Amino acid sequence: MSEPAKTLDGWYCLHDFRTINWAAWKKLGAEERESIMGEFLHLLDKWSAAQEKLEGSHGLYTIAGQKADLMIMLLRPTMDELIELETELNKSRFAEYTIPAYSYVSVVELSNYLPADKDPNEDPEIQARLKPILPKWQYVCFYPMDKRREGEDNWYMLSMEERRNLMRSHGMIGREYAGKVRQIITGSVGFDDWEWGVTLFAHDVLQFKKLVYQMRFDEVSARYGEFGSFFVGTTLPEDKIKAFLQV
Amino acid sequence: MSEPAKTLDGWYCLHDFRTINWAAWKKLGAEERESIMGEFLHLLDKWSAAQEKLEGSHGLYTIAGQKADLMIMLLRPTMDELIELETELNKSRFAEYTIPAYSYVSVVELSNYLPADKDPNEDPEIQARLKPILPKWQYVCFYPMDKRREGEDNWYMLSMEERRNLMRSHGMIGREYAGKVRQIITGSVGFDDWEWGVTLFAHDVLQFKKLVYQMRFDEVSARYGEFGSFFVGTTLPEDKIKAFLQV
Amino acid sequence: MSEPAKTLDGWYCLHDFRTINWAAWKKLGAEERESIMGEFLHLLDKWSAAQEKLEGSHGLYTIAGQKADLMIMLLRPTMDELIELETELNKSRFAEYTIPAYSYVSVVELSNYLPADKDPNEDPEIQARLKPILPKWQYVCFYPMDKRREGEDNWYMLSMEERRNLMRSHGMIGREYAGKVRQIITGSVGFDDWEWGVTLFAHDVLQFKKLVYQMRFDEVSARYGEFGSFFVGTTLPEDKIKAFLQV
Amino acid sequence: MSEPAKTLDGWYCLHDFRTINWAAWKKLGAEERESIMGEFLHLLDKWSAAQEKLEGSHGLYTIAGQKADLMIMLLRPTMDELIELETELNKSRFAEYTIPAYSYVSVVELSNYLPADKDPNEDPEIQARLKPILPKWQYVCFYPMDKRREGEDNWYMLSMEERRNLMRSHGMIGREYAGKVRQIITGSVGFDDWEWGVTLFAHDVLQFKKLVYQMRFDEVSARYGEFGSFFVGTTLPEDKIKAFLQV
Amino acid sequence: MSEPAKTLDGWYCLHDFRTINWAAWKKLGAEERESIMGEFLHLLDKWSAAQEKLEGSHGLYTIAGQKADLMIMLLRPTMDELIELETELNKSRFAEYTIPAYSYVSVVELSNYLPADKDPNEDPEIQARLKPILPKWQYVCFYPMDKRREGEDNWYMLSMEERRNLMRSHGMIGREYAGKVRQIITGSVGFDDWEWGVTLFAHDVLQFKKLVYQMRFDEVSARYGEFGSFFVGTTLPEDKIKAFLQV
Repeated sequence: MSEPAKTLDGWYCLHDFRTINWAAWKKLGAEERESIMGEFLHLLDKWSAAQEKLEGSHGLYTIAGQKADLMIMLLRPTMDELIELETELNKSRFAEYTIPAYSYVSVVELSNYLPADKDPNEDPEIQARLKPILPKWQYVCFYPMDKRREGEDNWYMLSMEERRNLMRSHGMIGREYAGKVRQIITGSVGFDDWEWGVTLFAHDVLQFKKLVYQMRFDEVSARYGEFGSFFVGTTLPEDKIKAFLQV
Repeated sequence: MSEPAKTLDGWYCLHDFRTINWAAWKKLGAEERESIMGEFLHLLDKWSAAQEKLEGSHGLYTIAGQKADLMIMLLRPTMDELIELETELNKSRFAEYTIPAYSYVSVVELSNYLPADKDPNEDPEIQARLKPILPKWQYVCFYPMDKRREGEDNWYMLSMEERRNLMRSHGMIGREYAGKVRQIITGSVGFDDWEWGVTLFAHDVLQFKKLVYQMRFDEVSARYGEFGSFFVGTTLPEDKIKAFLQV
Repeated sequence: MSEPAKTLDGWYCLHDFRTINWAAWKKLGAEERESIMGEFLHLLDKWSAAQEKLEGSHGLYTIAGQKADLMIMLLRPTMDELIELETELNKSRFAEYTIPAYSYVSVVELSNYLPADKDPNEDPEIQARLKPILPKWQYVCFYPMDKRREGEDNWYMLSMEERRNLMRSHGMIGREYAGKVRQIITGSVGFDDWEWGVTLFAHDVLQFKKLVYQMRFDEVSARYGEFGSFFVGTTLPEDKIKAFLQV
Repeated sequence: MSEPAKTLDGWYCLHDFRTINWAAWKKLGAEERESIMGEFLHLLDKWSAAQEKLEGSHGLYTIAGQKADLMIMLLRPTMDELIELETELNKSRFAEYTIPAYSYVSVVELSNYLPADKDPNEDPEIQARLKPILPKWQYVCFYPMDKRREGEDNWYMLSMEERRNLMRSHGMIGREYAGKVRQIITGSVGFDDWEWGVTLFAHDVLQFKKLVYQMRFDEVSARYGEFGSFFVGTTLPEDKIKAFLQV
Repeated sequence: MSEPAKTLDGWYCLHDFRTINWAAWKKLGAEERESIMGEFLHLLDKWSAAQEKLEGSHGLYTIAGQKADLMIMLLRPTMDELIELETELNKSRFAEYTIPAYSYVSVVELSNYLPADKDPNEDPEIQARLKPILPKWQYVCFYPMDKRREGEDNWYMLSMEERRNLMRSHGMIGREYAGKVRQIITGSVGFDDWEWGVTLFAHDVLQFKKLVYQMRFDEVSARYGEFGSFFVGTTLPEDKIKAFLQV
């Protein structure tokens, strides 16, 4: 058996994609819509309060295309809190005007393929990466992925040494995008249908395409990457939610 | 032809995943909701009575993400009882406020890959594993799986000797998690679309990820494992059902 | 080109899986439900009359899990009769309270892999197998399957000699289950999405699992079998239909 | 690059599969149903008029199993006419009582794998095959298919010579069924999700199974064939439509 | 790691496929339909104004078969504008009478496999190709595609030299269709589920089939092409929208 990578795990994460039922939303009176939005913004206020206390983070995004209209990304220290927030959202009146489109359950993960010369529990940078406050960058991209296990292309049959070398070159591409793309890797083995979720943030949406395309020529992706659906969108700041929901 | 593994088979098992139709549930008057919950709790009481008599077991869980809101796990000595309970549940008023999300039909299974020096029909430990009372541990994880039959990676073309050796090393990983993760394997060849269902219980949800990830580097999973959807959630104790359904 | 197997073909067969819309069913008044059940039982009476005249056969089964609640299995001498019965059922009031879940169109098939020393048109045993009256055994299992055509594992590129040898050993496993499992093979090449449907009957539901699992280690299944969804359930005798539909 | 096969292309073709919403249909008054059927028959009259002028062809079929209740097959000289007929059908009142089940867009195709010693534009037999009036034979079968491009089994990497030889032996099987099965091949590269649609007609439904099964042992199918869903049914003559829709 | 292709990226692109809910549309009064169409045409007027200022482009198409009735293709300089237009469309009354069928998010892309002897930012022809005004040709075809990464057929493991040679011969086929088929390639790595979208325009719909079929024999497609769903249809000029929606 190959030596498994060791991982550091941080906050639990829910990516919650929804389509808005505009027809039903428009049928409501303006006052009722206002009241429902108020309730939803109140929920967001509670999430923001948690974020200010560094007890979690969240982001709201509009997604391009028919796959979804909204993505809500939620991070919390425990799976229990995540499920509670999700249930509270599901029970809200706003949820009645949305249709579930996709979701992803995972946990922020750092892996040990890169040499670790620090005690992760003490290192503030590592702690900040494990418990990330989501950046307010303009664009977001999400996709789940697996490492392939097929015939000659079986990631999990490689030695730790081989995997580490492959990941090192892979990581170097990532570093070229420093300042342009910020990446949060969440692990989902045992939690959801793929092994990882990748969430990217950028100031320029084209950087997602450049990064993912360049990586595809790297052996880690070329031979060993299996990718799920890709979602791309823009950050929806709290002060633009009402405009977005205006009908 | 390779010698098949021999299995011991215990209680029949239904994993029943449902999404709650919160919009319809909220439209009901408080009194009606109360009455429906009362009826559902009465059903649970009957299941608990069976469990006390060791004539079956059951658990109720809240599931993370949009795949499902609830998982009901039911174990009974016969397939007939299982179908009867499922039909009774389907006819209940509570079921009208749920939407079927996924289900799995299987039977608790122990395999003979590990040396057996006892008569299974006499051995109380084996009997307890075949007719398990579900633990009240805080977290649950479920996924179905197959052994691969693809080109060079064909589990069913291996000799009994090869399979036994592979399973031994696989089992050793499992043993590292003793006390942290409890596992119930249910067989579903001839019953449902995958060959096995794996139900895990843990006090710390992260142990699911650690266990499944570590196993993925073991040849049994790396070369021969095919996995279906993963569901993760928390145990919903009977005294918290009303709070969960409170709107 | 390999020599194809010759087949004997008997009655045409429809497996019709349905989920019951219990919510709508319960909304009806008791009298209306009674009247709808009466109409459905009348349909079954007509089917029984045909069966008594050996002009077809049928069975009604409750299916475990969410895939379906009911399976209706219908056998008739011609495809036209099968479509007529299906259309009549679809037009019935009972059908309004069911939701189509899955169906399978095929024809009872015997193949020539085993030596034939008799004239099939004269042999009463062969005729009885081609026009089978469905047994009233307690459990039923259905799944569709293909023979694989993938790289080195291509059933249809094997010689008749190789296929006959493989099928002989496969058939020997089946014979071990004589009296325990009865099997009806229906061919569906050109009729439905898989090449065969397999319908099994047993007095002990566990025998399905034992048989299918043992066969999976045989080369015919291990290297050449591709399997669709598995459905398992119990026979619903006519005198228990009302109880099953009682709400 | 291998030399592509040259094709002759004839009429454009739509296979339109629909399920009938019997519950809604039955809710209508007899008079309204009569009026809707009259409108639908009027549409068919227009199609028949076109067929008499050899400006297209059409057929109506009842399909076995839950995949669909009806198949409408439409042939027209241009894609534009096809879309217009489809839109007109979709706008009809009858369409309100049907649910789209599957469709296929293609064009009648003859390929040059077999030696061509005639000028196709002059040859009346070839012209008749490119612009076929659908036969009134009792049974119909439809399935879409691809030529495989997988590892060693890549049809499109074979030389023209190899493909021609393979197709010749394949065609010889077809010829054994002359008078028993009539076949219309429609090409759909660039038009729909598979490369070809195959529509078969027979007087004896079993001939579909015999033909497709025999072909599966031929290398063209065994190594290079990928098949989609199979639909089988019976011709619904115009004078039986009312009986079919009678409730 | 292989050297990635460099790309030039132009306008962002949304392909938005919708099915029309004719039953609901017909239920409206003529006046209301007129008003809704007026609102939709007003939206199109705004898009046309943008197109006249070369700030984007759009096209409207009727699609053959049940996959969709309409395709709206939208091009804009930024992803933000694209999402805004999509949201505005989704909020429109017309959208209430359509059902989302499929969508694709991408960006116009030119790749550097062919020698570049010009500064793309200065070259007006390249700029026009990056910011294309959609041609008013009669027919449209859309499909998404990937370059394969499977065993020996792994595009991303080829050297830049090999890929360039393969693409050169591939491009030569395309050039044979100059004047017959116009092609817009949009890249979607990081944006949607496939790597590219291909949109073709033709005066003769058969040219789509000829081009795609001929290319399939070229190694780039034969060994390395993976294709999604194909959509084919006709351009719907603005002055024919009312006729198309007339019921």
